[in-house]
Amino acid sequence: MKKVYMDNGATTRTHPEVLQAMEPFFLENYGNPSSVHGFGQEALKGTEKARDEVKKLINAADPQEIIFTGGGTEADNLAITGYAMANRERGRHLITSVVEHHAVLHTCEYLEKEMGFSVTYLPVDKYGMVSAADFREAIREDTILATIMSGNNEIGTLQPIKELARVAREQGVTFHTDAVQSVGSMPVDVQDWGVDMLSLSGHKFHGPKGVGALYVRRGIKLHPHIHGGAQEKKRRGGTHNTPGIIGLGKACELARKNLPEKEKEVSALRDKLIKGIQDNIDEVVFNGHPEQRLPGNVNFCFRYIEGESLLLSLDLEGIAGSSGSACTSGSLDPSHVLLATGLSHEVAHGSLRLTLSIFNEEEEIDYVIEKLPGIVEKLRQMSPLYQKS
Amino acid sequence: MKKVYMDNGATTRTHPEVLQAMEPFFLENYGNPSSVHGFGQEALKGTEKARDEVKKLINAADPQEIIFTGGGTEADNLAITGYAMANRERGRHLITSVVEHHAVLHTCEYLEKEMGFSVTYLPVDKYGMVSAADFREAIREDTILATIMSGNNEIGTLQPIKELARVAREQGVTFHTDAVQSVGSMPVDVQDWGVDMLSLSGHKFHGPKGVGALYVRRGIKLHPHIHGGAQEKKRRGGTHNTPGIIGLGKACELARKNLPEKEKEVSALRDKLIKGIQDNIDEVVFNGHPEQRLPGNVNFCFRYIEGESLLLSLDLEGIAGSSGSACTSGSLDPSHVLLATGLSHEVAHGSLRLTLSIFNEEEEIDYVIEKLPGIVEKLRQMSPLYQKS
Repeated sequence: MKKVYMDNGATTRTHPEVLQAMEPFFLENYGNPSSVHGFGQEALKGTEKARDEVKKLINAADPQEIIFTGGGTEADNLAITGYAMANRERGRHLITSVVEHHAVLHTCEYLEKEMGFSVTYLPVDKYGMVSAADFREAIREDTILATIMSGNNEIGTLQPIKELARVAREQGVTFHTDAVQSVGSMPVDVQDWGVDMLSLSGHKFHGPKGVGALYVRRGIKLHPHIHGGAQEKKRRGGTHNTPGIIGLGKACELARKNLPEKEKEVSALRDKLIKGIQDNIDEVVFNGHPEQRLPGNVNFCFRYIEGESLLLSLDLEGIAGSSGSACTSGSLDPSHVLLATGLSHEVAHGSLRLTLSIFNEEEEIDYVIEKLPGIVEKLRQMSPLYQKS
Repeated sequence: MKKVYMDNGATTRTHPEVLQAMEPFFLENYGNPSSVHGFGQEALKGTEKARDEVKKLINAADPQEIIFTGGGTEADNLAITGYAMANRERGRHLITSVVEHHAVLHTCEYLEKEMGFSVTYLPVDKYGMVSAADFREAIREDTILATIMSGNNEIGTLQPIKELARVAREQGVTFHTDAVQSVGSMPVDVQDWGVDMLSLSGHKFHGPKGVGALYVRRGIKLHPHIHGGAQEKKRRGGTHNTPGIIGLGKACELARKNLPEKEKEVSALRDKLIKGIQDNIDEVVFNGHPEQRLPGNVNFCFRYIEGESLLLSLDLEGIAGSSGSACTSGSLDPSHVLLATGLSHEVAHGSLRLTLSIFNEEEEIDYVIEKLPGIVEKLRQMSPLYQKS
């Protein structure tokens, strides 16, 4: 059976060159980068080269602004909890948005429930976008940190990060962005954006799983989230995941060299898929912003059907998609992001996210456009909602 | 130049079979185990098989008692902070020991300094061992958790975990053990030991870096430490590091099948190395317990010299050792573990840890015994302390 992987928002295939770069660090240069001997120093050379690659991809000023973590979620936890706890004498108010990833939302909720912080959750418009005016209005005397994602993992909407960061800076509020979906698939420049902290994750752009990084602008004070050894200048305890870090560095290098060409290619495939769905299937709701959008993200709701049934039917044709975030799978609730854009529960339940990467090809788009209308029609025929309409 | 790696307490070489098991999960079965499609389900099969292997190695009752983490340090943080925060209504007193790894000590200190807990740090005897009587005496009405490591990472001393866990259970105190150095190199049985939580780390026994696990006995309530998606039954957010988890599972399988044969071999090499050093070098202090000891751990202090100089000289001969924990490297303070056993600063500074694994061979032991006396002698000749003596 043909296999078409369109769930790159959940995770991507590791690039063969990334794996190749990692391999010597499993079997030969397996030392601990914190060790003084030759094995350790070889490993250290590797991790510091990788740090420099991360720095270059996001245009940080200094490699020491990069803290390696065990993934994007840990980076979000470190940014938010680490900053909040280190700066809570200055105030206990945080600002975020209702469409953040759970790595951000649940961290904010924990600080609210357990640590005496208060949190403002900014609303979004029908595209899932936060407004800078709302943000400015939400800032209080005791606001210390704002955290707004750059590209939404479900509906692909890009937030006006540069504008939001400028407001934050004017008001003396530290600004973090969860850029897990953006880094590696579109240009990201922390200095141009003016953000103070930024989270990224290797496996979202053909690096390995289990490794990410937090950019922290020099001068920003934060507590470690994982307490332990003196690694990462005492900002993150735990033996360095050398092969993972090397892989992340390689993924950054590949992304830097191949953007913007790859971004253009992936965006073109995305637009073809969007048009193909709109032209061939009735009663669909296009989710997210039409232009301010992640290069690989396609998200629709198909009225009268359930996203889960759609996924299973697609899977039988070898097509891998998702109904939203993989991180909430197993839950019967509709996506908090779709509800926030104003969709009803009923419509939100029929969502399908197809997310593309540099490994997708045009014939795969054609294949999905060929298969999807029949699947949707068949499911609708079985739907009591559709019969009634 | 000959290369002899004897820093397996810091990290180990990944077993080639482990890497081989991981590889398909980078390039083929690269799906997110939380996804419903075929790519996801293949990945999920792999992670659940790995979970079962971890369960078997430590004899947990149920695979669901295993939570995958980004390493041993994160597992310690999850156990201690996660338990403390979830149970703080019942009391805010913790008990640990002065010889714990920093992953435990710094976590306890954070809870003490920032979260209103009080912590008792149990002393140790000259072997680095905690006494059950001291432990019993330290338990208060408001004690909710004790965390005592099973095998010391620096001096190799094994704590009387079974006895300590029994005291804890009798007094209604939850008991966690950091078994990062023990799991995979000696038999570990959570049910026989009677512990409620146990941390382990893949890279300490030929698994990959960046992955570990926390055993949590059914019924133990804890908050997640990394907030995010619903992974690991909402106990640890973040996309599963599938290849890492597969590698950890494979390392557990290999350890289970090869223990106790390998334990016996490594212990014999250790004893030969200890004897070789004692027979050939004067004025040495043997650190740790002579019998209750990790199979691969050798630790001596060489009077009148600095551990760092010794390491560098050994490195020139291709021998990789350490002066203590890799996690504290860069610090000029002598080991907190050696000081706790009663050594003076001066003596503690001259420490050398040589840690063996299943990959070490007898001729490597011979090589070290051949080279080390001359190196020590040369350094002593340059030492003002030695001249005076």
